[in-house]
Amino acid sequence: MSDTRISVSELIRFCGDCFSKLGLCAEDAKLTAEAIVAANLRGVDSHGIIRMKVYADRLRAGGIKPGGEFRIMRQGEAFALVDGGGGVGQIVSAKAMRLAVEKGLSEGISIVGVRNSNHFGAAAFYALMAVERGMIGFAASNAGPTMAPSGGTRRILGNNPLCVAIPAGMHRPVVLDMATGSVALGKILVAMTEGRRIPTSWGFDSRWLPTDDPREVIEGGSIQPLGGYKGYGLSMILDLLTGVLTGSAFADSVSGLYGPRAEPQGIGHMFGAIRVESFMPLDEFKSRVDREVSSLKSCPRAPGSERIFVPGEIEDEIEIDRREKGVPINDVVSAMRPDPYSAC
Amino acid sequence: MSDTRISVSELIRFCGDCFSKLGLCAEDAKLTAEAIVAANLRGVDSHGIIRMKVYADRLRAGGIKPGGEFRIMRQGEAFALVDGGGGVGQIVSAKAMRLAVEKGLSEGISIVGVRNSNHFGAAAFYALMAVERGMIGFAASNAGPTMAPSGGTRRILGNNPLCVAIPAGMHRPVVLDMATGSVALGKILVAMTEGRRIPTSWGFDSRWLPTDDPREVIEGGSIQPLGGYKGYGLSMILDLLTGVLTGSAFADSVSGLYGPRAEPQGIGHMFGAIRVESFMPLDEFKSRVDREVSSLKSCPRAPGSERIFVPGEIEDEIEIDRREKGVPINDVVSAMRPDPYSAC
Repeated sequence: MSDTRISVSELIRFCGDCFSKLGLCAEDAKLTAEAIVAANLRGVDSHGIIRMKVYADRLRAGGIKPGGEFRIMRQGEAFALVDGGGGVGQIVSAKAMRLAVEKGLSEGISIVGVRNSNHFGAAAFYALMAVERGMIGFAASNAGPTMAPSGGTRRILGNNPLCVAIPAGMHRPVVLDMATGSVALGKILVAMTEGRRIPTSWGFDSRWLPTDDPREVIEGGSIQPLGGYKGYGLSMILDLLTGVLTGSAFADSVSGLYGPRAEPQGIGHMFGAIRVESFMPLDEFKSRVDREVSSLKSCPRAPGSERIFVPGEIEDEIEIDRREKGVPINDVVSAMRPDPYSAC
Repeated sequence: MSDTRISVSELIRFCGDCFSKLGLCAEDAKLTAEAIVAANLRGVDSHGIIRMKVYADRLRAGGIKPGGEFRIMRQGEAFALVDGGGGVGQIVSAKAMRLAVEKGLSEGISIVGVRNSNHFGAAAFYALMAVERGMIGFAASNAGPTMAPSGGTRRILGNNPLCVAIPAGMHRPVVLDMATGSVALGKILVAMTEGRRIPTSWGFDSRWLPTDDPREVIEGGSIQPLGGYKGYGLSMILDLLTGVLTGSAFADSVSGLYGPRAEPQGIGHMFGAIRVESFMPLDEFKSRVDREVSSLKSCPRAPGSERIFVPGEIEDEIEIDRREKGVPINDVVSAMRPDPYSAC
């Protein structure tokens, strides 16, 4: 495959133009494009421009409202509940995170719940907005059902994501951006379309038995939660915080991104920020984070292990490369055919 | 083994008397006893009276200070940083959680960081203090090093625990109380002393290879993080929040509970509370949580699966049984010989 690379600015311009044509105002179109391309920049191609088509389909069909109104329903100094008006998940989320950052800067800690939103892409984009202001950022969401409770055979919970981003000094920020399943359903779909077997730690068949056959996972099976019942518990807690507490859809009432395109997903999010300087001077904190990162990275390595990574480090190095050389577009879109994310 | 049961009140009295003799004032002795017995009540025997001896040893040797002063170092309306004065972890934590509950009730959300504390037992005790007031409670801690970073062979991170407790209506509260390792080191130690093999998902040997030999884990190996690198990331994030941000010991500078008894552990905690009514009326929230719980519990079951559980449910049923019939003391202490927790 040829390594055609497209510069970040060009990609953002292209995506922004698409969203403008789909009815978003200039500012919203740019922001959405930036959020989407940010995922590609960090190598999280599953949440980048590969999703453009389904977002476009939804904007056309009405499942995402181009002019969805962002409305603060309730708020105090340190918290808010926002209605996303069925708008673009990325715009709703960026606005909600900005609110969380403001409140956190003022009060030391903040939480902003969001109801009536849509797929927000990669969570790190929002959590990192807090890091830029010397804060610790949190972002979480629920998602369409792909996981079953332990011992169960029906998909009820989403592969719900959680991101925590923490500023460092000499090192790059620590960014844990993970879903609560052992793997993205998309990877299982790609394996199925390519006729490959999958590790037995990825999915269950319809009888909740681990399987290496991706088709058995897709057709009536479910994604395995990470670490068994603990991942199931984490996914449920995230659904209670992002879906139940915010007044959004929850459990299997959340509509999947690739479900009926005219139907709002009803997704809920939760954002938060902690002002580091409530606890100690930012420089001191950063140097302590550096010490922790250095301590982990200098851990004696297992045979065959070339480096010890901390969360977010791989993504950071991809970002440095892609900012300089552009995004390798073939890699990014090759997994699109035949729409491998059609059941995410 | 005979099923000798001792009533909860008698156990609390016994433990309280021990702590009084060890120099705690009456109020502190009772609170510590209640926190410890609460773990046994919920069936979390690994964090109950089995720990009495090491707490006593530490109180005598000076590693835990009976009169450790609880001091608020910094605070705002919604946050606080507390110095535990090297006191009893349970007392420091209960006071810090009370502060988090007060601040959360007033501001909608709160966070209280704690430095200079000791082992706090089971996290659920604190998180549930928020649930009693119609709030969502969080409790987390760091711990002595038992886990290595992915690809590493030295223990740097603790099997750091996190608890989230969420009120429900008809159902009991949802309580996820979990550590970030796939299993407690104590279980591996018990297997070693009993000459049993362990599942290969529990621990690594000194070369970071999965092993079924508990001795290889204990002697130079490490606990496997839950779900691989995601559990490693979660453990690191908890250490950054509880240890680094609070000004406590962190990474491998945290002293293990069974390390030198005269040495303070330097443990850090983080507590928090969200007032549900910031987001919606409590009754409405509880009935939504009930719907999620019911939806999961009524999930079609896999062959051989008798019931679907939600987090905290098993512990609740044990509590109902033990409150009525007493705590089966032989079960509780049988794992004490030969001090299986000596490396936790």
